[in-house]
Amino acid sequence: MTTKYVYLFHEGDKDQKGLLGGKGANLAEMTNLGLPVPPGLTITTEACNAYTANGMQLPAGLIEDVRAALATVEEAAGKKLGDARNPLLVSVRSGARFSMPGMMDTVLNLGLNAETLRGLIDLTGDERFAYDAYRRFVMMFSDIVLDLERRAFDRIFDEAKSAAAVSEDWQLQPEQLKEVVARFKRHVKEQTGSDFPEDPLQQLELAVRAVFDSWNNERAIRYREIEKIPHDLGTAVNVQTMVFGNMGADSGTGVAFTRDASTGENAISGEYLLNAQGEDVVAGIRTPSPIAHLRDENPQLYGQFADICRTLEQHYRDMMDVEFTFEKGRLYFLQCRVAKRATAAAVKIAVDMVHEGLIPKEEALARVEPKRLDDLLHPQIDPQVKRVPLGEVARDVAGKIASKPALIYVDDGRVATVEHGAWDALSDEKRAERMRELIGRARFIDMARGLPASPGAAAGVAIFDPDTAAARGRGNGGGGEDVILVREETSPDDIHGMTSSQGILTERGGMSSHAALVARGFGKPCVAGCEAIVVDEEARSFSIAGVTVPEGQVLTIDGSNGSVMLGAIPTVPARISPELTELLGWADEASRMKVRANADNPADAAKAVELGARGIGLCRTEHMFFGEERLPTVREMLLAAASAKALQAEVAALRRELQSASGEKKNKTEERLAGATTEMEAPMRRYLGALERLLPVQQGDFEAIFRVMVGNPVTIRLIDPPMHEFLPDHDALLEEVTRLRIEQPDSPELRDQEALLAGVNAVREQNPMLGLRGCRLGILYPEINEMQVKAIFRAAIKLAGEGIAVLPEVMIPLVGFEAELKHLRTLLETTARAEMEAAGRSIDYQFGTMIELPRAALIAGQLAETAEFFSFGTNDLTQTTLGFSRDDAESKFLGKYLQMGLLAENPFETVDQVGVGSLMRQAIRAGRDARPSIKLGICGEHGGDPASVIFCHTLGLSYVSCSPYRVPIARLAAAHAALQDVAQERGR
Amino acid sequence: MTTKYVYLFHEGDKDQKGLLGGKGANLAEMTNLGLPVPPGLTITTEACNAYTANGMQLPAGLIEDVRAALATVEEAAGKKLGDARNPLLVSVRSGARFSMPGMMDTVLNLGLNAETLRGLIDLTGDERFAYDAYRRFVMMFSDIVLDLERRAFDRIFDEAKSAAAVSEDWQLQPEQLKEVVARFKRHVKEQTGSDFPEDPLQQLELAVRAVFDSWNNERAIRYREIEKIPHDLGTAVNVQTMVFGNMGADSGTGVAFTRDASTGENAISGEYLLNAQGEDVVAGIRTPSPIAHLRDENPQLYGQFADICRTLEQHYRDMMDVEFTFEKGRLYFLQCRVAKRATAAAVKIAVDMVHEGLIPKEEALARVEPKRLDDLLHPQIDPQVKRVPLGEVARDVAGKIASKPALIYVDDGRVATVEHGAWDALSDEKRAERMRELIGRARFIDMARGLPASPGAAAGVAIFDPDTAAARGRGNGGGGEDVILVREETSPDDIHGMTSSQGILTERGGMSSHAALVARGFGKPCVAGCEAIVVDEEARSFSIAGVTVPEGQVLTIDGSNGSVMLGAIPTVPARISPELTELLGWADEASRMKVRANADNPADAAKAVELGARGIGLCRTEHMFFGEERLPTVREMLLAAASAKALQAEVAALRRELQSASGEKKNKTEERLAGATTEMEAPMRRYLGALERLLPVQQGDFEAIFRVMVGNPVTIRLIDPPMHEFLPDHDALLEEVTRLRIEQPDSPELRDQEALLAGVNAVREQNPMLGLRGCRLGILYPEINEMQVKAIFRAAIKLAGEGIAVLPEVMIPLVGFEAELKHLRTLLETTARAEMEAAGRSIDYQFGTMIELPRAALIAGQLAETAEFFSFGTNDLTQTTLGFSRDDAESKFLGKYLQMGLLAENPFETVDQVGVGSLMRQAIRAGRDARPSIKLGICGEHGGDPASVIFCHTLGLSYVSCSPYRVPIARLAAAHAALQDVAQERGR
Repeated sequence: MTTKYVYLFHEGDKDQKGLLGGKGANLAEMTNLGLPVPPGLTITTEACNAYTANGMQLPAGLIEDVRAALATVEEAAGKKLGDARNPLLVSVRSGARFSMPGMMDTVLNLGLNAETLRGLIDLTGDERFAYDAYRRFVMMFSDIVLDLERRAFDRIFDEAKSAAAVSEDWQLQPEQLKEVVARFKRHVKEQTGSDFPEDPLQQLELAVRAVFDSWNNERAIRYREIEKIPHDLGTAVNVQTMVFGNMGADSGTGVAFTRDASTGENAISGEYLLNAQGEDVVAGIRTPSPIAHLRDENPQLYGQFADICRTLEQHYRDMMDVEFTFEKGRLYFLQCRVAKRATAAAVKIAVDMVHEGLIPKEEALARVEPKRLDDLLHPQIDPQVKRVPLGEVARDVAGKIASKPALIYVDDGRVATVEHGAWDALSDEKRAERMRELIGRARFIDMARGLPASPGAAAGVAIFDPDTAAARGRGNGGGGEDVILVREETSPDDIHGMTSSQGILTERGGMSSHAALVARGFGKPCVAGCEAIVVDEEARSFSIAGVTVPEGQVLTIDGSNGSVMLGAIPTVPARISPELTELLGWADEASRMKVRANADNPADAAKAVELGARGIGLCRTEHMFFGEERLPTVREMLLAAASAKALQAEVAALRRELQSASGEKKNKTEERLAGATTEMEAPMRRYLGALERLLPVQQGDFEAIFRVMVGNPVTIRLIDPPMHEFLPDHDALLEEVTRLRIEQPDSPELRDQEALLAGVNAVREQNPMLGLRGCRLGILYPEINEMQVKAIFRAAIKLAGEGIAVLPEVMIPLVGFEAELKHLRTLLETTARAEMEAAGRSIDYQFGTMIELPRAALIAGQLAETAEFFSFGTNDLTQTTLGFSRDDAESKFLGKYLQMGLLAENPFETVDQVGVGSLMRQAIRAGRDARPSIKLGICGEHGGDPASVIFCHTLGLSYVSCSPYRVPIARLAAAHAALQDVAQERGR
Repeated sequence: MTTKYVYLFHEGDKDQKGLLGGKGANLAEMTNLGLPVPPGLTITTEACNAYTANGMQLPAGLIEDVRAALATVEEAAGKKLGDARNPLLVSVRSGARFSMPGMMDTVLNLGLNAETLRGLIDLTGDERFAYDAYRRFVMMFSDIVLDLERRAFDRIFDEAKSAAAVSEDWQLQPEQLKEVVARFKRHVKEQTGSDFPEDPLQQLELAVRAVFDSWNNERAIRYREIEKIPHDLGTAVNVQTMVFGNMGADSGTGVAFTRDASTGENAISGEYLLNAQGEDVVAGIRTPSPIAHLRDENPQLYGQFADICRTLEQHYRDMMDVEFTFEKGRLYFLQCRVAKRATAAAVKIAVDMVHEGLIPKEEALARVEPKRLDDLLHPQIDPQVKRVPLGEVARDVAGKIASKPALIYVDDGRVATVEHGAWDALSDEKRAERMRELIGRARFIDMARGLPASPGAAAGVAIFDPDTAAARGRGNGGGGEDVILVREETSPDDIHGMTSSQGILTERGGMSSHAALVARGFGKPCVAGCEAIVVDEEARSFSIAGVTVPEGQVLTIDGSNGSVMLGAIPTVPARISPELTELLGWADEASRMKVRANADNPADAAKAVELGARGIGLCRTEHMFFGEERLPTVREMLLAAASAKALQAEVAALRRELQSASGEKKNKTEERLAGATTEMEAPMRRYLGALERLLPVQQGDFEAIFRVMVGNPVTIRLIDPPMHEFLPDHDALLEEVTRLRIEQPDSPELRDQEALLAGVNAVREQNPMLGLRGCRLGILYPEINEMQVKAIFRAAIKLAGEGIAVLPEVMIPLVGFEAELKHLRTLLETTARAEMEAAGRSIDYQFGTMIELPRAALIAGQLAETAEFFSFGTNDLTQTTLGFSRDDAESKFLGKYLQMGLLAENPFETVDQVGVGSLMRQAIRAGRDARPSIKLGICGEHGGDPASVIFCHTLGLSYVSCSPYRVPIARLAAAHAALQDVAQERGR
């Protein structure tokens, strides 16, 4: 049996997207629903794959099969392809499983030639219409199928309009159009050496081949690589009877959503044009009318249209995106698909449809991709903003942007601006009102699209170098202006400029580029690799589409989708809508895992609670040390501690020596011991003094956090990072000392700096990630841990005294050996008990450990005997399991690995399930065996990554913890994980 | 039933060491063998433990039991304790399971008091003897049991000698001795407030208590901690009838070994003194005669003695160490034990005893501790060197050492020296002859003993600061003198001095101190923590026992046992004796695992073959890059590679951009592309040019190694370390650039150094251990790996052409992902095949990987599909599994951990079986499942650590690989492991 490569529309259904492509499957579904769909056929993706496998040869018999199916179409349409008297015209469209930019889109009016043109004129009696159809076809076919440059045809057409002294396409007369077609054909002959194909069947075959070829063109391949779409899906081809929206005032065409794709409002939205073909709507040459006008203009047609939309929604149980045409008052649906929608709309529609009884809660949850909630948690371009590509208005824009307006938009077809001054003069209220008005009426100018490298929208003046950005910008809450730093690429030298900017835009570099990584680290919006712009850092400008944007021009970037816009575009703030709250409530009901937040201060803790966190999974105590007024005390403490401990070790060694010494040796040892003991006093006093000053400060921190988190557990990690992180930068200090040695060799400043450098050198390490940090610090400097535990328990006791429930969980980091954990737990629990006894109040608390070293995972059974909870520190665990230093890997080789496909994911973003996951599994098994009640969580950055959250669910963790703004994402992902379980259960 | 705390000698046997202590068990054994042992009893270790547990109260009934047993002893001896007419005198000695310095040793002549003294005089008729015995007893008892300072008694005794105008002890007359005893007793009364105890039973009880107390004194506790001896073993007490070697010319006492303890020669060795008590032999006050003289002086006695020695050897099937006394011609054995012996002797005796039919080969293997073979693999102090403690000759030495002699020794009781000049003037032959003569006759001066921190002996002039050491020393083969660097402690600032020295001696610091670690790393002898010396770095001298040793004095240190000697002491070179060769042959027969060596050059490879390696397990290709004439090329290569690759990435990005660019963007991109392409050419040319120059050099290296290793496998690891390791030191460069910026701002030198600094900065990493190294380098810079593979295969092809068998194993380091290994194997096998095809010759080869990241161990099943062998890189695997950077951990916290007992072993020395071992086990299981034929080895430094070798055996590895000098150790350890298996099999 030969493979069936050609399907008539009624032969398929919506679930055959793999075979028929998305478009074909939905056309089949609509046909079978009895909706008005012009008849047609679909050539399958398998035919495309056979074509590719055959070395770009159409499978044997394909054209014959197409011809046979076409006969049925011709019968249904009552017309015949190539029939000079009653010609069938068809559209040819590609239609893959996933829609893909860069692939051949559409050829309309295929079947026209000199003969059938006459038939069309006769049939319609509209010569201008027929010639216009003909010139459109020749132009599209030449561009898309014959791969000739579109510009040449535009030029010929423009010349014709000039010669006829008209400005609009429709003003050309039939004769003039006829001449245009002739010139088109001559151009084709010149370029290809062959005549424009006249045989409709040959036209069709060429179009089919062009669709197949476009599956394998470089842009399509690259797109699939980026989007991780397999290369062997292939594309289908849809051949459909043409209907014409441009046959007069009772004809028209449009696109619509069955609900509002921006807001999710339950109202049909969309646009249509009377007397136009679909491409006119898409191209934006004429301004379409909102779909609501159709109701007024043609209530009957609108009624039929709205009924069909409702039918489709009920049938698909989702919001649909449709294309329609009405030809002389008769309505046709040309395409439908589940509509793309803004995240806010996705949430509202999912929740609404539950209330409408269309879908169950589980499906509502499943319909919102957790990662997309990120959009709602950062300021965003107002989803109602309508856009116009810069290309269309470039000439008008060019003159406007020198005066540095705050807003540039298109109003009634003209480029309009609002200047900073005028805008700033308005009251906030007035400005908001004016903005709402503008959003309803204006279109905003989209300049380009780059990679969505770090989410959120930001507006500010374009600045082209980091020094100016640092000087002019207001950075993190300081004075100055809002700045967007625009660079070809960023480098570590740009950091000061990046911190002072509201957002970052680069011409080059990918999702793992320096700009992207740093911006995500800082939580600043970033659009990276925006290759459409040409940055000239020397000239302090960039250019695009003939427009030069100078320093000082206000831009808006949206790092959530990569768009770059001119002017300060209206944004909407991050907002938790009632629907989102409801959806997340359902998520929590569905989930088995809890979601906590990583929060180091009361503000973050409050945000975490607001976003639904059920506790703090990671409170990094040392982050509290970095405050401007605290750091000097912390530095003093650490430098003194290091000297004191070195001397303490010496004193202990000398005491031991003294036991066996005699004679001269004894004298010398005694002398030394006295010296070291005296010498030790001063640094020890400084060390303990600084700790004493830090104690009430940390206690205050904890009080504030406990107060916010009332009743929820708070996991507090004792000091973790290597000491050098708190100290001044070594290299800068070395430079300074070297300079002072030459220029001021006897200055007290030199002595101070040399002493500081010596202190820094003493704690410096070759691989600090694997050095003196975590519990190792706690063991060598127990006084610091003791101070922290005192602070925790004093705070807890105080709040408990006020009747506020507190649940501190003391977490010991970087444990690798049972002895470390036992040693510290014994030491610190003694401190804790002393505090509770002194206060006469007992606190519910737990002691636990992080599992962030492979060895910890491997001996988890032993650790569980001492630890009441485990928190997987997957950042460190990833570093050690993979041997990837995060700082070095991402900049030195990880990007290349991702690019080469050696790694599919950045293991610092999505947990490495095979390697790190295997250790987690072992640890969980052994931990549970040793202590069935053990609490298990994760507090690495993976806790906010949906794929990793799902993995944590399958591992059976009790909770994930992530940064506050990722809490909603994690809540939804946790629900998805639980629902997958349920689905699998059912599947069994 | 009450516990039996007291055993008569005939009630025990040699296997009761735990209960009776080593001394007691062997006394029992000898008694039961019918050998002449003075009768006695042993109080058990359990009594000691009960005493400790009771808060230092003797167990109830103990003294009664002792008294009862004593009655039997009295009967056998025909004397009675405290009997004024026929008094029994006893010795009281401690006797733990393991002999321990710092514990109470011996009290002789216990039972003497004013009354029994008279009895003794009457019995012996020798008043002088009796009074001498009495003063010895009072002195020992006061010192050891009453814990009074020995010096006071010495002073009294010396005063008596002065008053009597005599110089030797034995010249004092009975009346004078009587006065001495009286003064001793007055001193005791003054110091303790009580009379010296007269009641013999009270004396005995006090002595027993003193032995028990000494088990718990601080020195004993510390010793047990260091030696890992449990604290609850307790000590036994032996109470034995005194016999007297000092009762005239037919009396004497001595110590002997049944064979030569230095060389293993099958001849009784030892010394004796006529008319002396044992303490006189030990104290070295009189020079004893070699045991051979006894044969001449008293052939009958010697015959009896030799017979008993033979009996003991046959009975114990081992070389024995005995103490004997003959009293008026009657021979007694006072102690016997399995003798301690030098490593060379241990090997020879074990092998000889097999040939003598005394023991089987397995026992011979078991009797040599693998670790001790280290002694034979480094130059050593000649084991025949006899020593005299510095204390005894200190006064004489003091005047001699200023003249900087090469040798200081004691000849005929006088301190003699040979000066540098005189010594150097001799021919080598003459000097060796003179040295042999000296060894026979002289005693060399032992100054002190520290920790054996790094094995081997070295002699050189004492130098007290690293700068002078670097200036004067000849370091690794350069000019200059042999230097011993003497420091209080070393620090990283001393490194240049350490590399220039032959050996290192420190006053302070333990086995993990900086000096110890660095010395072991450099393979230089080191004695650390030699607390007996007092270093005065400012004065450039150290002092000990009243002697000041100045800079320039020649010293000898032996890092194998921690001894420090004056002068250049005769050493023996590292030597593989025929017996060792035979023993190691048996080891290889017994072992299941093979031993390979880590060798990076032909010399090391040759040494490895000489020491029995069966192949090279790790040939670090990059070590070949460090040669003085190669490093500049390597640096040029790496710096050019980094720039070239950065530009290559830019070119690739621009090419991609160009595809979608148009208009102005296109122009600019084209311009940039042209620029970057041109810019790339120069570094690319430099990079590839340098590689081309390195290719024949590496090929030559491999040819030479293959030639040495003929027929044995050679595992070659492709380039591994981070790039910065080949480049100049960053900090020094930064200082230089800073200086030049100030002093020569416009110099070309500044530009050069700035460029170099930029290059260094470009490859610098925050945690290089976890950065761009290993296969990551190979993936980003495939040209380097390709060059290396070309060199390997060209060398192999060339040698194969000469008929030499070659078995290269290409090893890819730091693999964490299957894709990395597949990518590189495909790339490099293509290179290899091309070489073989071009040469028309095929080579047997394998591709494999290191397992040195936790992830690699976890996905070993996947890796085994591509790798034909695994080599466990346990150095890196330890670093990542434990999260310990070797460089940082050892200096920052590991020492403290070991000191605190948080860790029992340094995991970089002995493999962490729990953590790292668990990953190894997982990897082996999965690797074998995926590829049953997979070859498994280890090439970390653990490969030469006996405990780790045994662990590798239990894991079932095919081979271990270690540094050439550890190959014999590993061979023996591998045999031990296999024999343990056999023993366990038998035990089942």
